[in-house]
Amino acid sequence: MMAAWYEQTVDGVLLDITGVLYNSGPGRGSVIPGSVDAVDRLRQAGLPIRFCTNETTSTKSALVEKLQFHGFNLTEADVFPPAPAVCSILKRRHLRPFLLLHPNARANFADIDTSNPNCVVMGDAVDEFTYENMNKAFKLLMSLEEPVLISMGRGKYYKEDNEIVLDLGAFMKALEYACDIEAEVVGKPSPSFFNAALEDMGVTSDKVVMVGDDVVNDIGGSQACGMRGVLVRTGKYRPSDEQHPTVKPSGVVDNLAQAVDLILKHR
Amino acid sequence: MMAAWYEQTVDGVLLDITGVLYNSGPGRGSVIPGSVDAVDRLRQAGLPIRFCTNETTSTKSALVEKLQFHGFNLTEADVFPPAPAVCSILKRRHLRPFLLLHPNARANFADIDTSNPNCVVMGDAVDEFTYENMNKAFKLLMSLEEPVLISMGRGKYYKEDNEIVLDLGAFMKALEYACDIEAEVVGKPSPSFFNAALEDMGVTSDKVVMVGDDVVNDIGGSQACGMRGVLVRTGKYRPSDEQHPTVKPSGVVDNLAQAVDLILKHR
Repeated sequence: MMAAWYEQTVDGVLLDITGVLYNSGPGRGSVIPGSVDAVDRLRQAGLPIRFCTNETTSTKSALVEKLQFHGFNLTEADVFPPAPAVCSILKRRHLRPFLLLHPNARANFADIDTSNPNCVVMGDAVDEFTYENMNKAFKLLMSLEEPVLISMGRGKYYKEDNEIVLDLGAFMKALEYACDIEAEVVGKPSPSFFNAALEDMGVTSDKVVMVGDDVVNDIGGSQACGMRGVLVRTGKYRPSDEQHPTVKPSGVVDNLAQAVDLILKHR
Repeated sequence: MMAAWYEQTVDGVLLDITGVLYNSGPGRGSVIPGSVDAVDRLRQAGLPIRFCTNETTSTKSALVEKLQFHGFNLTEADVFPPAPAVCSILKRRHLRPFLLLHPNARANFADIDTSNPNCVVMGDAVDEFTYENMNKAFKLLMSLEEPVLISMGRGKYYKEDNEIVLDLGAFMKALEYACDIEAEVVGKPSPSFFNAALEDMGVTSDKVVMVGDDVVNDIGGSQACGMRGVLVRTGKYRPSDEQHPTVKPSGVVDNLAQAVDLILKHR
């Protein structure tokens, strides 16, 4: 019989943020019970942690500030959101984006040239996903000889204020279909996105556990990179996720606290 | 060598409306030159005509009134839009829809029970495709044991005011992806939709020519029913449509007038 996910060596941990540390909602949202303490216990055990998030509705500093307010022990250097990775790509490839973003996320692209755009970058624009804005992105893509659509994730939905709501993946699909193109996804489940966090941590994927609430993007994505992917029953989790047609989590736990219990007990 | 599309018997004609008879735009839009006369000439030749449209931003009577204002010789009985077909389905299957529609199209569903909805019906909602409305449809679908999404067409884009703009197919794809479901399409290219017009006309598909500006929905759809599908270079037509990877039009003409010239010359 194969060893359980927590019985094999764990030398580093990747954590999803929304749905694992806290739930988004009015104001700063609400902490998931036991998660602040769970992060502290991983720190005390000397385990390196990186936070791998597809959060694109704020800046990294605003996100970290919110989490620190809730008592989480983390710094900006520990957090890997898609926007900085997208900025590197834009600069390297001389791309000038039309930005389809949440207003709070625009500051992430402050030093990017957006004149005369030759690509589209989309994040979770929420109420900015209007017909007018979708059309602007569509018309630009249709006007380009080689249309480039960069999407900061491909999530279907997330939990907000105790309800599931549409994530940017749905609107990415809309543009892919209308323009007959395929988006480049920066963020989970893109392997290069996970690998950047692993490299920064200096631990190989076989020694790392990823904990998340998205069975496809967190669990399937991390497993494709050679990590163990552990699904929490918090955040957007739905019981049907445990019978997903293509992704079988390495483990399923009630919450982050339980995942950390198991990791530390077997060290 | 095979006979050209106009050299074989033509005993009936199906016409798309937008992009073939007229282009939508400010006010009542603008007639495509030669189209009023082309319809008259088909009538004079005694050829039955039906108008097969995925128009879902108005009522049938408002659409017919607009076309009559432009001088087109047609009545409500000649026009087949998706809404009446959807109403029949809703009644037969005891479905109570959440309606994601253009405000002008709501009257089509005036006698439909929309209390406590158990399905979603979407048309070209245009500015009503807000994040809020998309979320309402999404949450309802996710709450249903057997989610039913009925989409009045699956078009990618159309031409409005001389620009291409997103059609409802893009937003249908968004909901399909987020909910992991497949929409039921009522309207072109659905065979049952074309067949209703053919039956009403009393002509078998092999004797009928469909003229449209949408290579997939008009041309591919009618060909799949055994008709000849003739693409016009008006409306949303783009030169790349003539090199479509899967659909090869039975013929390509500059406009409806030219299609009618060819049909009548070879009768």
